[in-house]
Amino acid sequence: MDKISVADARKAEAVGRHVRLQGWVRTRRDSKGGFSFIELNDGSCQGNVQVVAPGELANYEAVVKHLHTGASVSIDGEVKASPAKGQATEVLASNVELVGDADSETYQLQKKGHSFEFLRGIAHLRPRTNTFGAIARLRHQVSMSIHQFFHEHGFYYIHTPVITASDCEGAGAMFRVSTIDPGDAPKVDGKVDYTKDFFGKPAYLTVSGQLQGEAFACALGKIYTFGPTFRAENSNTPRHLAEFWMIEPEMAFYELTDNMDLAEAFLKRIISDALKFCMEDLKFFAEKLENNKELFAKLENVLNNPFKRVSYTEGVDILLKSGKKWEYPVAWGNDLQSEHERYLAEQHFKCPVILYDYPRTLKPFYMKVNDDQKTVRAMDVLVPGVGEIIGGSQREEKLDVLESRMREQGLEPEGYGWYLDLRRYGTVPHSGFGLGLERTILFLSGMANIRDVIPFPRTPGNAEY
Amino acid sequence: MDKISVADARKAEAVGRHVRLQGWVRTRRDSKGGFSFIELNDGSCQGNVQVVAPGELANYEAVVKHLHTGASVSIDGEVKASPAKGQATEVLASNVELVGDADSETYQLQKKGHSFEFLRGIAHLRPRTNTFGAIARLRHQVSMSIHQFFHEHGFYYIHTPVITASDCEGAGAMFRVSTIDPGDAPKVDGKVDYTKDFFGKPAYLTVSGQLQGEAFACALGKIYTFGPTFRAENSNTPRHLAEFWMIEPEMAFYELTDNMDLAEAFLKRIISDALKFCMEDLKFFAEKLENNKELFAKLENVLNNPFKRVSYTEGVDILLKSGKKWEYPVAWGNDLQSEHERYLAEQHFKCPVILYDYPRTLKPFYMKVNDDQKTVRAMDVLVPGVGEIIGGSQREEKLDVLESRMREQGLEPEGYGWYLDLRRYGTVPHSGFGLGLERTILFLSGMANIRDVIPFPRTPGNAEY
Repeated sequence: MDKISVADARKAEAVGRHVRLQGWVRTRRDSKGGFSFIELNDGSCQGNVQVVAPGELANYEAVVKHLHTGASVSIDGEVKASPAKGQATEVLASNVELVGDADSETYQLQKKGHSFEFLRGIAHLRPRTNTFGAIARLRHQVSMSIHQFFHEHGFYYIHTPVITASDCEGAGAMFRVSTIDPGDAPKVDGKVDYTKDFFGKPAYLTVSGQLQGEAFACALGKIYTFGPTFRAENSNTPRHLAEFWMIEPEMAFYELTDNMDLAEAFLKRIISDALKFCMEDLKFFAEKLENNKELFAKLENVLNNPFKRVSYTEGVDILLKSGKKWEYPVAWGNDLQSEHERYLAEQHFKCPVILYDYPRTLKPFYMKVNDDQKTVRAMDVLVPGVGEIIGGSQREEKLDVLESRMREQGLEPEGYGWYLDLRRYGTVPHSGFGLGLERTILFLSGMANIRDVIPFPRTPGNAEY
Repeated sequence: MDKISVADARKAEAVGRHVRLQGWVRTRRDSKGGFSFIELNDGSCQGNVQVVAPGELANYEAVVKHLHTGASVSIDGEVKASPAKGQATEVLASNVELVGDADSETYQLQKKGHSFEFLRGIAHLRPRTNTFGAIARLRHQVSMSIHQFFHEHGFYYIHTPVITASDCEGAGAMFRVSTIDPGDAPKVDGKVDYTKDFFGKPAYLTVSGQLQGEAFACALGKIYTFGPTFRAENSNTPRHLAEFWMIEPEMAFYELTDNMDLAEAFLKRIISDALKFCMEDLKFFAEKLENNKELFAKLENVLNNPFKRVSYTEGVDILLKSGKKWEYPVAWGNDLQSEHERYLAEQHFKCPVILYDYPRTLKPFYMKVNDDQKTVRAMDVLVPGVGEIIGGSQREEKLDVLESRMREQGLEPEGYGWYLDLRRYGTVPHSGFGLGLERTILFLSGMANIRDVIPFPRTPGNAEY
């Protein structure tokens, strides 16, 4: 008796095998013919396998006819070709063992659909639903595709620190990490004495691994990070989390156009793998989620079109000439808002767009200044249906320019000694970008709320589990 | 002119190609014949490629003869078969461009060797050395092998939360995560008012993703975590970090023996991949590190032997009968110390050992109680040369037993409502284990200090970078 997964039992080649299946009952239906149908799921795939439990089973009346949604079972049986439409196989049970019951009076996941908001309150149970099982499988595949893509392209995976005394962008609210009791903080001259804290100085949760990633790119050539990042911003929106996962590749001897090439190939690989390996789950999203009928058209648009490369200046011209009325005014030097980005990708070009060479005043100190002195070598990848999905830049590799950019933005170069060393010793042109994992899952699935694409979301007022 | 990596340029099949190489000068040696040898490294592999820069180059006197260790260069040339021993190829340069110099007066990485302690102080530069480049490549390969192993075995990668209001083991010092200013904490009745904190309650950095991983295993079957974990313990030892990476698989319908089978296959895969893909770096470690001559024998011992499975009770018997004098006394009910574990693996069995069924008093509440009521289904994997490398258990799946175990250890079941739900609804036998990534790298490389196998180590008093 082989233990096999539901995914394997659903394949036609399983017909004739005597197998053991272990999982959870999604539904049970008793037939008038004196037998029952059990829809069994074990998380290995979206679909269930249908188990036919004959009335002859010794525990049929006592156990099988009382199996509840959510009960765990171990079932032995033979895989048969199914006469029913939409499934290749079914399993004729020779033994059904109840492993753990689920009281239908109190178990919160019943047959009927539940709102995503309700399910957020039971994040430990929601992976048992179709939607959140599909999200977990998609998230796994995307993560795996990312590792495989970089591995195949000669990148090294670097674990940049989560706790840090640096601050990547010189901005952005950070969480403090401390062992000081805030009710009884040691003080000197009325100020908190952080020499008594665990790290001997104030420490925070990282907002980006980029700066540390640059140190490794300037030694190993091509690296990427894949880790958690944090924002202590009081943003209660469907697009913001306090804790989220970022992927940040960084490459020595890469100029901005190389960076664009990589970002395009990378995003296309993620999409093509999702279409190859997660089709059942993607179909589920396209059919079951609101306003998601165009999911496959959206994904194929990005997969099959070359990304249009447009400078910020050209982009602003297009927006000014569009004749549209904007909520946020368009002018050279203003940051582009979601309405502008989406207009460019969705209505004007109708394909993915890479906007580059932004005004220096809009971007952080580490981006390379162009010869025009007005713009920096930044790039944002905009995709239809979402807007910005990747942001990156070529980094300033000249020591003196970098120092003056820091001062221009009110930062003290003295505080960045090690980062400046990368420009002092064997400096190279280098580039990188960041991709938010959760926003990628939103894009691929059509889910609307970022709290529903991470296992246990952290937001203001919420760190349950 | 193709850009290729140093790794590719060192292969015999590159002979005859006209290529561009970009990297950093390790050393330069000027020959009396009026030309120079440049040892070039780009991080793609341990070895350098030797570049022959002829005196005819226009910038030979002005630039080439002044190339310093650490300078970045872009070199065009033809790959030739090398007449020298130990290298298949060399590159005859037709153009050498200095990209970024490295002042030999101030650049801290010169030709001579540096102590690991010195290099810890320049963690942004140490990946440019042979040892730390090798560690980064090995760490990458091990991470990749872990993802591939689980992917091929039907596991899903789950990102359990880093910030948490739970505490996995009911013990272990944790870091507080907060936006409260400890110099000006809001108080009610003299106590800190955490309802004013970001999450509305006290929040911490996770010590383990296990409990949340169990929720996903009880929905998806087989999952694993791979993420950072934290300990706020004031341990200044070569084996402890405040921030380190853990891998924690968790499997539904797995009993302890299944867990042992998985742990053994998993560890063997990591070793066999390292031997397959990191041979040049492993040879470097075996040759260059102190007391590391036996590295390959140690790895092959673990790879080629079935892991011996021994109960804790048998293990204690063996230790008592050994006639050895122990620093820590051996008695049934005492925790085993490193000296005991290493005796069993290294001297008694001379192979990897899985010790299982530990006294219930030694282990956390979530481990399954055996029928003898005295022991729990815990397991530790011990390997020669290291001691414990994996710890795991079958989890208690019975609600009432789990609740009474919590009380026995002074925990309130009320605080673990969601975790108990996993036993209330469709409970299943399940198991899992944890592997510390850094300890695995210590084992594979023979490095002695855990601070040298993570990019930017965090320890008491140290969160630089």
